[in-house]
Amino acid sequence: MSSDDPTLALARELIARHSVTPDDSGCLDVIAARLAPLGFACERIDGGGVSNLWARRGRAQPVLCFAGHTDVVPTGPLDAWATPPFEPTIRDGVLYGRGAADMKSSLAAFVVAIERFVAAHPSHAGSIALLLTSDEEGAATHGTVKVVEALAARGERLDYCIVGEPTSVAVLGDTIKNGRRGSLSATLRVKGLQGHVAYPHLARNPVHRFAPALAELAATKWDEGNEFFPPTTWQVSNIHAGTGANNVIPGVCEVMFNFRFASVSSAESLEARTREVLDRHGLEYEIDWHLSGKPFITGRGRLVAALSDAIRETLAVDTELSTTGGTSDGRFIADICREVVEFGPVNASIHKVNEHIAVDALAPLAAVYERAMARLLA
Amino acid sequence: MSSDDPTLALARELIARHSVTPDDSGCLDVIAARLAPLGFACERIDGGGVSNLWARRGRAQPVLCFAGHTDVVPTGPLDAWATPPFEPTIRDGVLYGRGAADMKSSLAAFVVAIERFVAAHPSHAGSIALLLTSDEEGAATHGTVKVVEALAARGERLDYCIVGEPTSVAVLGDTIKNGRRGSLSATLRVKGLQGHVAYPHLARNPVHRFAPALAELAATKWDEGNEFFPPTTWQVSNIHAGTGANNVIPGVCEVMFNFRFASVSSAESLEARTREVLDRHGLEYEIDWHLSGKPFITGRGRLVAALSDAIRETLAVDTELSTTGGTSDGRFIADICREVVEFGPVNASIHKVNEHIAVDALAPLAAVYERAMARLLA
Repeated sequence: MSSDDPTLALARELIARHSVTPDDSGCLDVIAARLAPLGFACERIDGGGVSNLWARRGRAQPVLCFAGHTDVVPTGPLDAWATPPFEPTIRDGVLYGRGAADMKSSLAAFVVAIERFVAAHPSHAGSIALLLTSDEEGAATHGTVKVVEALAARGERLDYCIVGEPTSVAVLGDTIKNGRRGSLSATLRVKGLQGHVAYPHLARNPVHRFAPALAELAATKWDEGNEFFPPTTWQVSNIHAGTGANNVIPGVCEVMFNFRFASVSSAESLEARTREVLDRHGLEYEIDWHLSGKPFITGRGRLVAALSDAIRETLAVDTELSTTGGTSDGRFIADICREVVEFGPVNASIHKVNEHIAVDALAPLAAVYERAMARLLA
Repeated sequence: MSSDDPTLALARELIARHSVTPDDSGCLDVIAARLAPLGFACERIDGGGVSNLWARRGRAQPVLCFAGHTDVVPTGPLDAWATPPFEPTIRDGVLYGRGAADMKSSLAAFVVAIERFVAAHPSHAGSIALLLTSDEEGAATHGTVKVVEALAARGERLDYCIVGEPTSVAVLGDTIKNGRRGSLSATLRVKGLQGHVAYPHLARNPVHRFAPALAELAATKWDEGNEFFPPTTWQVSNIHAGTGANNVIPGVCEVMFNFRFASVSSAESLEARTREVLDRHGLEYEIDWHLSGKPFITGRGRLVAALSDAIRETLAVDTELSTTGGTSDGRFIADICREVVEFGPVNASIHKVNEHIAVDALAPLAAVYERAMARLLA
């Protein structure tokens, strides 16, 4: 791979910008400057200190959108990096720098793929779009979710979306994420009545009262999952009762727990089933719920087929579908888009020091995106 | 009640001494100076900053011992006291001062009762003894337990012991403690494997693993109690797992619990039964046990009869036997004494500001001790 590969060149240019979340540091301007000459209408939907770009070429359906983020996580200790994290450096065929894998190489590959596709198909079907934010690694409250709200408000619908998250595990192309589980958290306060351990009849121990409900919740099979999702899981992350004194029955037991849930369950059904257990055990309690991500799933439709075929043609890899891992901005985009998948580089080094990508993965990554585009819009 | 009542006078003298645990502040000297002229052999068994007095009149059996402590709990905020806590003050027929109820009035009543009994029965049967310490309200490690060890080492056995703890609830004489439950504590660490809540198959949640064992322990009937003891109770005082983060499965769950146990169970049997439950649930754990008090019980024998009769004759009150409440030094004395009971003033004000005793309870308290002595040794 020569150093004049356009994907490598743009990746280096983006990595050199110090865009620690939520600072875009001009990355979106660089990208918009490349897209505008191709006929993209570039719109900034900034707010709350976050920079967002919505760029679209064409007015017709179907809309194929490439989505991602320019922000990166903090560097961690600088002296643990072999080379400065914002000085993209190639060593032994590997490009090092913060964002090299997550996800400035994907952004560069998006741009290069689009440039080539538009040059070859100036009158392509449908529309090509980019949805980029500088707030994916942070609070994610003023980023993709705000752009999606703006698009929904004016009735823009997407048909296909490829999020450039680093989904590959061992080799480029081995894994596409075609959905994510939902994440539902709660803080539960089981109330009792404080007292002396020598006089339990004058107190109500909330730990004892909660125990059988806790055992039941821990043993519950919430669902069986489905073709794409493992069964829903429930995990206690924290339980606290007592002040340290060993002769006092605590007055309250506070519990934090989290569901990671398949699309066969819903936040509403899980909340109702949890309450049913707590109520049946006669507990007095308060509970606060927080839905941090609805599940989304994209079945084996046109988008998965186009991307899988593009990967096989380009890389000779049979890709696997996966819904594991944490949340991503795909959960927001799924609200206005029929089919959403995530695909990008090998993720082994993300969020770590000496983040990197193989230089010879860059051009193939752009080629995969270009081929998938061609299958959907040519 | 005139202010020249000798019990009131001695109680005032003792209260005026600032004997916050474990400081005796000369109280034992005052008492020994009253006993020595009566023919008591007074022996100090001090150590570890604690003052202890063993005084005995006579060498024969049976030995009737009066036991108690000169130390008092701290005053708490001085400005919350109506009068200074170490300036005994009578107001509206009530004697105020730290130790007025717990238990300097009992010590004064012991001495006055003994003086009168010895004057009337200079050649009484058996022996009269006093076992007093300045370390009952504190660590209780160098007080009564050390005297008991010394007596046991030289083969001295007691037959009857009256501990002057404030056992009366509503009126003087309504309650004798004829035993105390045992107290067995433990700190349990259930081990798991920390991990991310999104990947529970890569972790082991110690809260989930412990839940069914916790539910079983909380629901267990440890015994049925007996004539004198309520059933053994088990109470969790503390449970802690998790670091506050809501996406991390905790690596360990720490639990503190306490048994208050009837004499029909033993520390050994309760430990074994607890381990059986933990082991049967397949838990990996560490557990540290602390036996802070063995149970003791004194049935309806000569001592209970003597004291109950003395209360009825003096106060026209039918006394009740009780084994409720925390631990006391009776647990140590029971090792070398066949029959141990506790009896003293109304306990409503103990360990509080404005601690007090009704002035007209002092002479009757001495009279009860004297009458009980007469029934056992006259």
